[in-house]
Amino acid sequence: MEVVKVLHMNGGMGDTSYANNSLVQQKVITMTMPITEDAINQLYCSTLPKSLVIADLGCSSGPNTLFVVSELIKVVNQLRQKLGHQSPEYQVFLNDLPGNDFNTIFKSLPSFQKKMSSQLGAGAGPCFFAGVPGSFYSRLFPSKALHFVHSSYSLHWLSKVPEQLESNKGNIYMARTSPPSVLMAYHAQFQHDFSMFLKCRAEELVLSGRMVLTLLGRRSEDPSSKECCYIWELLAIVLNEMVSEGLIEEEKMDSFNIPQYTPSPSEVKTEVLKEGSFSIDCLEVSEVNWSVNNNDGGYNVAQCMRAVAEPLLVSHFGEAIIEEVFSRYRGILSDRISKENTVFVNVIVSLIKNE
Amino acid sequence: MEVVKVLHMNGGMGDTSYANNSLVQQKVITMTMPITEDAINQLYCSTLPKSLVIADLGCSSGPNTLFVVSELIKVVNQLRQKLGHQSPEYQVFLNDLPGNDFNTIFKSLPSFQKKMSSQLGAGAGPCFFAGVPGSFYSRLFPSKALHFVHSSYSLHWLSKVPEQLESNKGNIYMARTSPPSVLMAYHAQFQHDFSMFLKCRAEELVLSGRMVLTLLGRRSEDPSSKECCYIWELLAIVLNEMVSEGLIEEEKMDSFNIPQYTPSPSEVKTEVLKEGSFSIDCLEVSEVNWSVNNNDGGYNVAQCMRAVAEPLLVSHFGEAIIEEVFSRYRGILSDRISKENTVFVNVIVSLIKNE
Repeated sequence: MEVVKVLHMNGGMGDTSYANNSLVQQKVITMTMPITEDAINQLYCSTLPKSLVIADLGCSSGPNTLFVVSELIKVVNQLRQKLGHQSPEYQVFLNDLPGNDFNTIFKSLPSFQKKMSSQLGAGAGPCFFAGVPGSFYSRLFPSKALHFVHSSYSLHWLSKVPEQLESNKGNIYMARTSPPSVLMAYHAQFQHDFSMFLKCRAEELVLSGRMVLTLLGRRSEDPSSKECCYIWELLAIVLNEMVSEGLIEEEKMDSFNIPQYTPSPSEVKTEVLKEGSFSIDCLEVSEVNWSVNNNDGGYNVAQCMRAVAEPLLVSHFGEAIIEEVFSRYRGILSDRISKENTVFVNVIVSLIKNE
Repeated sequence: MEVVKVLHMNGGMGDTSYANNSLVQQKVITMTMPITEDAINQLYCSTLPKSLVIADLGCSSGPNTLFVVSELIKVVNQLRQKLGHQSPEYQVFLNDLPGNDFNTIFKSLPSFQKKMSSQLGAGAGPCFFAGVPGSFYSRLFPSKALHFVHSSYSLHWLSKVPEQLESNKGNIYMARTSPPSVLMAYHAQFQHDFSMFLKCRAEELVLSGRMVLTLLGRRSEDPSSKECCYIWELLAIVLNEMVSEGLIEEEKMDSFNIPQYTPSPSEVKTEVLKEGSFSIDCLEVSEVNWSVNNNDGGYNVAQCMRAVAEPLLVSHFGEAIIEEVFSRYRGILSDRISKENTVFVNVIVSLIKNE
C-alpha cells in the first residue's frame, strides 16, 4: 500500500464524508486551543512579522480545516490591537496528501474569507490562502518560510505501513496479541517518521518559530495498551468474523495493517530531544470520548472511523465489503460504548525552534 | 452570472476536459517561451534570490499547468550552473478561480516532481508547489512575496460581464452588429480589470520583479474586428438558430454575454503606462491557427471551445442544450476552417516592476 497515494479522509460533503463526521477532531482542536493560542501569541510578540505565515499540516477538508486558522488569526488580531500595532498580512498554507479533497476547501474559501474579514473588522490585514499537497514527512516549504505550524490528529499517521508485520496475523494494528517484533517495527517507523518531520519543519521555520502538534496517543508506556488500540481491535473483530464467513480472504486480512502509531508523551519527548532543533514549551495529555454526543453513539463513531479509514480499506479489500464492514462495526461500537468508558487519548506538544 | 463562481475550464481528464483540449494554448505557450525565458533570466540575474518564487495565474488544470513552470525552472537551473551559483529553492504558486480542478493537478504532482528532479540533476534546489484559489483581480499574495508572474490565455477573461449590455441582442460578445455602447462597456470593464490586476501584482512583486502576460487579442484598433470576435459570432449563429427553432428562449439568448475582452497592443500599453508600476520590456503580437492539427479541425476547435465555455453556457442555459450546441458549432467551425484563414491573435507583454 502506497500510503501517500491511498491515505486521505473521505472527501466531499456527503453522509460518509470527513466534513460531516469529524466532531471528535473538532472537539480536540477546541480542547487544545488554549495551548495553541498561547504559542501563537508568544510567536507574534517575539517576531512581530509583517507577513505572518501559518501552516496547518494534515488539514483535511471540512469545517475543521478553516476553524483552527480562523481562531489563530482572531487571537493575533486581538493581541496586535491591544499592543497598538498595525496588522500583519496573513498567509495560510493548508497542507494534506495529494488525495485530499482540496477542491471542496477551495470552493468554500470565498464565503469564509468574507465572513472572516467582517469578524476581524477594519484594520485587520488581508489573509491569503494556499493549498499545499504533499507528505509532511518531506520538505513542503522553502527554508525559513514559516512562522507557525499547527497539526492536529495527523501526525499519528505513519509515512508507510512498517515492514516485517507478517507475524501480526489476525490483527490490523498493534494489539494485545501482537508479537514484540510487531510493536518494535511500529515504534521504529514512528521514530523515523517523527524525527524526519521535526527535521523538515526545523528547516522551514524561522528562528523562534513555533509548532503545536496534537497526536492520538496513550498515557501508558505499553504500545499495545487498550487505550490506543481498542478501536482498531474492534474493527479487527469484524474483519476476522467476515474471514470466517468466507466474505474476506484470510490472506488479505493477514496482510492488512493500519499505518498509524499512537505514542506516549515520553516517546514524543524523546524524539524531540534526540532531533535537537526544538525546545518543548509544554507537553500535555488529555482525553475525549469516542462518542461526542450521547445519542446513537455507535453510528457516529462508526461514521467517523469510516471517514478516516474507508480509503485504506477500499484500497486493500475493494469497495464491495465496505457497507457490511461498517454496519457490523457500528453494532460492536454501540455495544462497547454502552458498557465501557471509551476514550481517545491525545498527546499535545508545543515546541519552539532553537537558535 | 457570478463569474468568479462560474468561470473555469472543464476539469478532470475526460473527452471534454480542458486537460485534453488545450493544444492551442500549449502552442501559444511554446511560441512565447523565448520572451518568458529572457524575462526570468534577467530577473534571476538582477535579484539572485535564495528562494525564487514564481506564480502562474490562471493555471487551469492539465498538461499546460506544469509545462510553463518546468520550462522556467530548467532555464534558471541552466543559467545558475553557467554562472557557477548554488541553486535557489523554488516555490511555485498555481493560481486559478476556486472552481478550477486543483485536485487533478495535485494528484499529478508527485510523479511530475520526481521526473523534474531527475531532469534537473544533482545540485538543483527543491521545488515546492502550492495551489492558490481566487481571482487575480484581487490580491492573492502578501506584499513583496513574488519574483516572477506568468499568465497565459487568462487575462482576457473579465472579472464580470460588463453592465448595460441589454442592447447587445442577438450577440453574445462584441460583434460587428453590436452598438457602440456595448463596445464601450466591454472596453471600460477591461480597463478597470486590467489596471486592478497591475496594481495588485505591483504590491505582490519584489523590486525588479517580472511579469510575462499573454492575452487573446487583436491587431486592429476596432474592438468588433473579425480577428477577435469571429469565434464567438459563430457560436452566436448556433444559439440564434436554436432560438428560432424554439430550443432556447429568446430572453435567455439576449441576456447571455461572454465575460471576455480581447485588447489591442496599444490598449494594453495604455493601461500599463496609466497604472504606472511597471515598465514595458517588450510588447509583441503573434497569431496561431484555430486548428492546431489539420485533421478534423472543426472537431478539435469545437472541443477546445467547449472545454473553455461549457461551464458558462451550463450556468446560463442549463445542461440540456450543450450536446446540441457543440454538435452544431462543430459543423460551422469545420466549414469556416476549410474556407477561410482562421487564427487567434495573441498579445504578449513582458513587464518589469519599477522602483
